Amino acid sequence: MIVLGIDPGTASTGWGVVEYEGNRLRSRGHGCIVTSAKDPSPVRLRRIYDEARSLLRRFHPDVVAIEELFVNVNVKTALAVGQARGVLILAVADLAQPPFEYSPLQIKMSVTGYGRATKLQVQEMTKVLLGLDRIPQPDHAADALAVAICHAHNHAGAMLAASKDGVKQ
Amino acid sequence: MIVLGIDPGTASTGWGVVEYEGNRLRSRGHGCIVTSAKDPSPVRLRRIYDEARSLLRRFHPDVVAIEELFVNVNVKTALAVGQARGVLILAVADLAQPPFEYSPLQIKMSVTGYGRATKLQVQEMTKVLLGLDRIPQPDHAADALAVAICHAHNHAGAMLAASKDGVKQ
Repeated sequence: MIVLGIDPGTASTGWGVVEYEGNRLRSRGHGCIVTSAKDPSPVRLRRIYDEARSLLRRFHPDVVAIEELFVNVNVKTALAVGQARGVLILAVADLAQPPFEYSPLQIKMSVTGYGRATKLQVQEMTKVLLGLDRIPQPDHAADALAVAICHAHNHAGAMLAASKDGVKQ
Repeated sequence: MIVLGIDPGTASTGWGVVEYEGNRLRSRGHGCIVTSAKDPSPVRLRRIYDEARSLLRRFHPDVVAIEELFVNVNVKTALAVGQARGVLILAVADLAQPPFEYSPLQIKMSVTGYGRATKLQVQEMTKVLLGLDRIPQPDHAADALAVAICHAHNHAGAMLAASKDGVKQ
């Protein structure tokens, strides 16, 4: 299974692609869609949309996982992130399944096993779990890989539970 | 000039088209893009995007005016409205000018001349200014017409000021 993780934002939207088979995780690529504050909103949103479409064509993910907004943000930030999320969700609208959404807490728990892990701890574990030599850069790309890992863990867990249930029956 | 006013929302996005020439305003149509809470986000956002594109093809507006978010909302609402706004702004991205944005206060001031006007007073004045027999329905459509009137008033005012400046020089 290939999962595209996304950490949405207007200035910088992180993306990371993780392939998983059972417990084995492998990074297929990561990066950021960056837009300039000098450009008007329509230009920035169009760029995010076009680049997301291009990532979908390039990696053919089976599923997309998007980070939910951290609740302690102000209304202005929520609106800006919402606009970026809107065009990202639109870009993946043609996929068979709607995107999965994970909260920052779920991502921390899933990647490090500890809900109060620091950003650096999450990044370190992301590096370790994907067998990378160094922490992926920039930060938003590392965050997006963590979202993808979170989905892989949850999904693999669900599959494992389902197969256990199957044995029991 | 033809202006398409938009009052964005995920459940209901109001739209209203106003044609203006100097001080003369005329309604060309209004309505709502309605989506069901039963549908997943991608389906709802795709519907909003497709219907907005269809309105642009139908009315060929010279400009689009979008209502800004009322600041006293919670983060969840801001995120939901942001997502709808994102796909609406993307839909108008191909127009020559980016959409104009007006705050609820600007709209009230512009339509009624009074920043603390009630929703009903704004709707009544919208009816009067457009020479309609009754208040446009549903509410979001009336709000969208008010956004379009606000743009017409501001734009006509700017044009008038520019022509006055021209006389002075």
